[in-house]
Amino acid sequence: MKIKELQTQLQKHKIDCAVFFNLEEHTDPNFFYFVQHEVSGCLVVPQTGVPYIIASVMEAEKTCTAGFPVVVYKKEFMETLAAKIGKKKNTRVGIDESSVTLAFFSALKNGLKGSSGCSFADTSGICGTLRMIKTTQEEGHLRKACEASDEILETCIDQWNQFKTEREVYDFLVAETHKHGLVISFTPIVASGSGASQPHYQSKNIPLKKGFCVIDFGVKYQGYCSDTTRTIYLGEPTEKERKLYELVLSAQEKAVVQARMGIGAKGIKTFGDLHNQCEKELGAYAKYFVHSLGHGVGVQIHEAPAVSKRSTIPLQNGVAFTIEPGVYLPGKLGIRIEDTLIMKNKKASLLTKISKKLIVKK
Amino acid sequence: MKIKELQTQLQKHKIDCAVFFNLEEHTDPNFFYFVQHEVSGCLVVPQTGVPYIIASVMEAEKTCTAGFPVVVYKKEFMETLAAKIGKKKNTRVGIDESSVTLAFFSALKNGLKGSSGCSFADTSGICGTLRMIKTTQEEGHLRKACEASDEILETCIDQWNQFKTEREVYDFLVAETHKHGLVISFTPIVASGSGASQPHYQSKNIPLKKGFCVIDFGVKYQGYCSDTTRTIYLGEPTEKERKLYELVLSAQEKAVVQARMGIGAKGIKTFGDLHNQCEKELGAYAKYFVHSLGHGVGVQIHEAPAVSKRSTIPLQNGVAFTIEPGVYLPGKLGIRIEDTLIMKNKKASLLTKISKKLIVKK
Repeated sequence: MKIKELQTQLQKHKIDCAVFFNLEEHTDPNFFYFVQHEVSGCLVVPQTGVPYIIASVMEAEKTCTAGFPVVVYKKEFMETLAAKIGKKKNTRVGIDESSVTLAFFSALKNGLKGSSGCSFADTSGICGTLRMIKTTQEEGHLRKACEASDEILETCIDQWNQFKTEREVYDFLVAETHKHGLVISFTPIVASGSGASQPHYQSKNIPLKKGFCVIDFGVKYQGYCSDTTRTIYLGEPTEKERKLYELVLSAQEKAVVQARMGIGAKGIKTFGDLHNQCEKELGAYAKYFVHSLGHGVGVQIHEAPAVSKRSTIPLQNGVAFTIEPGVYLPGKLGIRIEDTLIMKNKKASLLTKISKKLIVKK
Repeated sequence: MKIKELQTQLQKHKIDCAVFFNLEEHTDPNFFYFVQHEVSGCLVVPQTGVPYIIASVMEAEKTCTAGFPVVVYKKEFMETLAAKIGKKKNTRVGIDESSVTLAFFSALKNGLKGSSGCSFADTSGICGTLRMIKTTQEEGHLRKACEASDEILETCIDQWNQFKTEREVYDFLVAETHKHGLVISFTPIVASGSGASQPHYQSKNIPLKKGFCVIDFGVKYQGYCSDTTRTIYLGEPTEKERKLYELVLSAQEKAVVQARMGIGAKGIKTFGDLHNQCEKELGAYAKYFVHSLGHGVGVQIHEAPAVSKRSTIPLQNGVAFTIEPGVYLPGKLGIRIEDTLIMKNKKASLLTKISKKLIVKK
């Protein structure tokens, strides 16, 4: 994916080669992004010419399936890397500082120190920007992921009466995903009753509680993530609860419509503006909206752009992201409604399409 | 866990405080180790006195359950951290370099730069060593994890005839784990036929193939991981295949016995010696044993000590680790047999106890 565009950026930033790792001790989502296959090794992208993967003998058989030339190492990865990229004087090596740990960086510096004066440059900005704008192929993958998760979530809610515990719902979601030949994109959240007031609740082996139940779920299709949240009600909601749900839903739907380029309803130009406007829509409940409006989504469940208060990234075509306002009354209840979207023809287009009408399970 | 021991080490290494993160943008397994609860925030352990957790308002409710004092921040984590630990001149802050990324480190340096000259020290060695030697409580958790995974794996193999695809086996293992109120400790591997020749095979939605089938599985009990691999045979093994299985089994069982302190059978003193001796036992097949003999295990599925060719770490009481020799004939077959063990009374004691006799499913 976008190897040529990466090479153009490397030339522009005078970086001789970029390296991306998917090794046991170190993984970098950019590796999958550029390789587009679930294999292991170190991807080396030179400024010009053919990129290749350095892989251990243990992984070589699998790594060859990715379609890149594979350089096999038997014992020491670092020696092989140094021999391949450290020949030239003063090689400038690009690494993604948001995924390389201090320890791995030390090992890298150490491994390349025999080479004639390697230096390092951060490629996280370059990669983040490339990844933020999706290609038609990526859009297709996201669309398929969202279609599948819509279907699975719908089946799950339809068959709700078979579930006794939060974990049973979780298991159903995972097993259904596998039946579709897919994998989940993150650990699903099934948070019932007061548990729903914790945005990052961990599903438990406990009976489903009465009240709002937040289900946050997504799958991966060809490595691309979907992300949806629906909140249903177990039991009989009070009028006040129904109104609170409608408030969150209305704020979510308004944000979806307001995510437009150019025409600037309410002066919204950036993802930060979108967050702040949505917060306003929640009125007195804005103080119970304790997280970001959303996040970029792609090969990672959270990636660029930031969709939060201070984000200065403009709304632009090709950006895939989520809109997920929520209201959490500590120890009492939680409501969150989330869709995955992509900016297309200057406006946000819903990729997740499952109904947002409040579903009540008696 | 071992907070006092950590503080002793901080004093010894003149580190004013150690910080461990479990934040969305950055997680560190040491956080769970010291806190022993699945909560979010930044654990601050001063050289002396009471450790505390800095947590966002969104996570505060949950974080309070961990039993540490909680300092809540509303907006900027870094500001709160700086206000708490940066008051003293020349504070030396301990971070685990094996988990902190370059980008997070920049943010940390930046956030603390208003403070009067913070400097940083690596605590990864200190933490790794503390974590390597298990307490009685940790041993108990590992034991429970291993008992549960023995039971689940046994049920899975007993009920084998219900499975048609690799993914169905995988789903069964995950769902059974949840029924026990537990979670898996890593993505299970179910690799049939030629897939088994890839040690890190990803289970597929494909019919189970004839031949050896490698099942690598583990669960977490109170955050502590078990790790077992059994290889069964689907169909009718040839005499040669049976012999190859017996060779791997014999090498595995010998390594279990040879993991002893002091009396030095075959001169084995370190985990490296243990690996090298096991490799010898595989004779002509040693070249098809392409990974380490094992790894330390605890709150992480892979942690100290290294159990590999060059490991100089001595066999010692309290160390929990795996022994998992394997033979992989590329594109043909794979066999791996793995147990989780703990060094006790100067010898390795099996924590996983499920039978290793070759099971044949027609």
